[in-house]
Amino acid sequence: MITEPRTLAGFMELLPKEQILFEQIKEKIEKTYQRFGFLPLDTPILELSEVLLAKAGGETEKQIYRFQKGDTDIAMRFDLTVPLAKYVAKNYGNLSFPFRRYQIGKVYRGERAQKGRFREFYQCDIDIIGDGELSILNDAEIPSVIYHLIKEIGFEDFTICINNRKILNGLFESISQKENATEILRIIDKLEKIGKEAVIEELEKLDLSKQAILQIMNFIAISGTTDEKLQKLEELKITNEVFQNGLIELKQVVSAIRIFGVPDTHFKLDLTIARGLDYYTGTVYETFLNEHKEIGSICSGGRYENLAEYYTDKKLPGVGISIGLTRLFYQLNELELIKAKKSSMADVLIVPMLEDMQKPIELASSLREKKINTEVYLNDKKLKAKMKYADKLEIPYVIVIGEDEVASEKIKLKNMKTGEETVCILDAEEIKKMMV
Amino acid sequence: MITEPRTLAGFMELLPKEQILFEQIKEKIEKTYQRFGFLPLDTPILELSEVLLAKAGGETEKQIYRFQKGDTDIAMRFDLTVPLAKYVAKNYGNLSFPFRRYQIGKVYRGERAQKGRFREFYQCDIDIIGDGELSILNDAEIPSVIYHLIKEIGFEDFTICINNRKILNGLFESISQKENATEILRIIDKLEKIGKEAVIEELEKLDLSKQAILQIMNFIAISGTTDEKLQKLEELKITNEVFQNGLIELKQVVSAIRIFGVPDTHFKLDLTIARGLDYYTGTVYETFLNEHKEIGSICSGGRYENLAEYYTDKKLPGVGISIGLTRLFYQLNELELIKAKKSSMADVLIVPMLEDMQKPIELASSLREKKINTEVYLNDKKLKAKMKYADKLEIPYVIVIGEDEVASEKIKLKNMKTGEETVCILDAEEIKKMMV
Repeated sequence: MITEPRTLAGFMELLPKEQILFEQIKEKIEKTYQRFGFLPLDTPILELSEVLLAKAGGETEKQIYRFQKGDTDIAMRFDLTVPLAKYVAKNYGNLSFPFRRYQIGKVYRGERAQKGRFREFYQCDIDIIGDGELSILNDAEIPSVIYHLIKEIGFEDFTICINNRKILNGLFESISQKENATEILRIIDKLEKIGKEAVIEELEKLDLSKQAILQIMNFIAISGTTDEKLQKLEELKITNEVFQNGLIELKQVVSAIRIFGVPDTHFKLDLTIARGLDYYTGTVYETFLNEHKEIGSICSGGRYENLAEYYTDKKLPGVGISIGLTRLFYQLNELELIKAKKSSMADVLIVPMLEDMQKPIELASSLREKKINTEVYLNDKKLKAKMKYADKLEIPYVIVIGEDEVASEKIKLKNMKTGEETVCILDAEEIKKMMV
Repeated sequence: MITEPRTLAGFMELLPKEQILFEQIKEKIEKTYQRFGFLPLDTPILELSEVLLAKAGGETEKQIYRFQKGDTDIAMRFDLTVPLAKYVAKNYGNLSFPFRRYQIGKVYRGERAQKGRFREFYQCDIDIIGDGELSILNDAEIPSVIYHLIKEIGFEDFTICINNRKILNGLFESISQKENATEILRIIDKLEKIGKEAVIEELEKLDLSKQAILQIMNFIAISGTTDEKLQKLEELKITNEVFQNGLIELKQVVSAIRIFGVPDTHFKLDLTIARGLDYYTGTVYETFLNEHKEIGSICSGGRYENLAEYYTDKKLPGVGISIGLTRLFYQLNELELIKAKKSSMADVLIVPMLEDMQKPIELASSLREKKINTEVYLNDKKLKAKMKYADKLEIPYVIVIGEDEVASEKIKLKNMKTGEETVCILDAEEIKKMMV
């Protein structure tokens, strides 16, 4: 009986050419993380529900893949942060702090199925975890990782948006509106769409005082260069301590970001970024492709006070970012914003057109020794079919070896893109030189 | 409330130093697969139970992680072969054959928990799938991949054992013992342990004729070099067609393996290898470290008639191998047979001992541009604590930068292994030259 071969809805499964591109981007992210000295980590996809869901609740818990196996209540990880918290708490005595780790792995969320949303997706995270304390300089290093990362993937025109949660928290505290924070942020987020007057009207509905509304409107009116914004934040004269601490941190971060080599063209202060109200406590980041803001933030994160409070009494402040690679890849690919460096794994296909496979296979081995990915077409087909195979797989070079080539010890290296054929002696070193 | 941070039993979770080693081995396997032109594939970990278990049954099914999510009956993959079968059947029209793919990913089996057994483990697979037919030469290329792979991981003293299932099948057919095949194989497998006489006794209990037992004993007595074994197989004069086909294939494979550059020191015929009775139909492989046979086969596989018969009417013969990396890593690591090329991600740690971070961070950026993994110690600690951090993480080089270094534009590059310090001008290119 034949079962229809199908893949679960919301689970990405790529054809080889797209998969190669996906792997190239994943590798670029990984190499960048390594360049900054982050250590690899690979935690299980399955965890005890009791451990994984020690904190979670609400929306997230509904999306969890959770099941019973024997007596064990098991859940699939829905992010890489909770497993990191568990890991650091569990291995505290065996880690060196600051603990800088990256993790690239699949996570699972049973979201409502819709185009471009995935239930299994890669997250690519870095975090720097301090033991008790963590210098603000780390908050400035993170944007420099983002900067190199996005450039490495191939984009030049992007902006890293930076804020500090303490500034927002302090502002709301200073006008006694801490409880309304979420609602106020939601309203001011609509500024561009509905305009200043409508924002004021909506704020009035929240029973805010004239004074409070004025303070908010002054705050969101802040514009200009990064330094002008910092200046105007000073001029608000908000004496609230949290606000002032936030401002000091933001100044330190801005100053250090420049030292870290991120140009002013590629970062800006966006004073209304909050990124979820309960987790981040200081610096927060979002990253946008300037020409494709519709994609949303492609790399986000921030500073948190305490990574693992559900697992340990140790205070473990940290700062980190995450890239939702599966969704990002899907969108960049749909918009045709990414291209593969190469679309095949093989650099060259050797096509034997003779009985004795000695020479073709020997050449392949020699080319591989020279780190050239080489495939030999081993099946019995007509030349035309073999060439079509190379063409479909977009293998850049083909070498046909028949009796003549063996006798003369000369081959033709065919560039499949240009159709150009270069005569070359049958020698791996010489052939390598001919390949661009 | 504090939840004890723990990891599920049977799930490997490594400390950073071991993880680095694991990643290095994984990368070597991947690079070798790519070198032979295999295409990457990444299928979901979750599949519809109906699809994933179309074939499975018995022992495997009991071990499956399977659960209901909403209306959907979901199972976690227990190998990479079934997902490959599904993928090839599903994407048949979009693939080029022979389809050569590698996949490195986690699979799940709820095995009984015991030391060295894992419920989540990496498999590293390659397969070559033909459309209707697949040349026997592919069966000879696989051992050459194994050969390069194991050498790449760092071993020289290993043996790739090769057999052809048709030889065993034909032998059993010729003595009318097809149904007893499993039982007979089990008995002859004990030859080394219990000796010839005991094997004969056990075979007699199966009600085998004197003639049949003689045939089996002649068969398992075959020894000598590869060519001698092939000669002796001829001399058995078994006229059974399956046996004869197997012998022809085995000769072809042996002849081609040599062309593929695998030396006779590194492969041998082992005529009793079967590797599960219902899946493989031709060539089969096992690989052993000669000094550590107790580990079992570290890389196994073989030829199968039909990859995806449960999903399509298309005949898709294939040949492939799999490495159970998690278990292999665990064993090699326990036996201390593997060592990391480097134990840290950072090649160099820059230790600032001054207020102004400009120079240290600039140097880090310059070094990273030169592809040197560089970390800056960003937290405020005494020099001793910073050096201890580098030491614990086994970062090979440290550069301390204080006021003196900035003023003189000279630094000392400290080799942490030898303790040796080399004076060098504060310039990334010069520093790179000093690093071995």
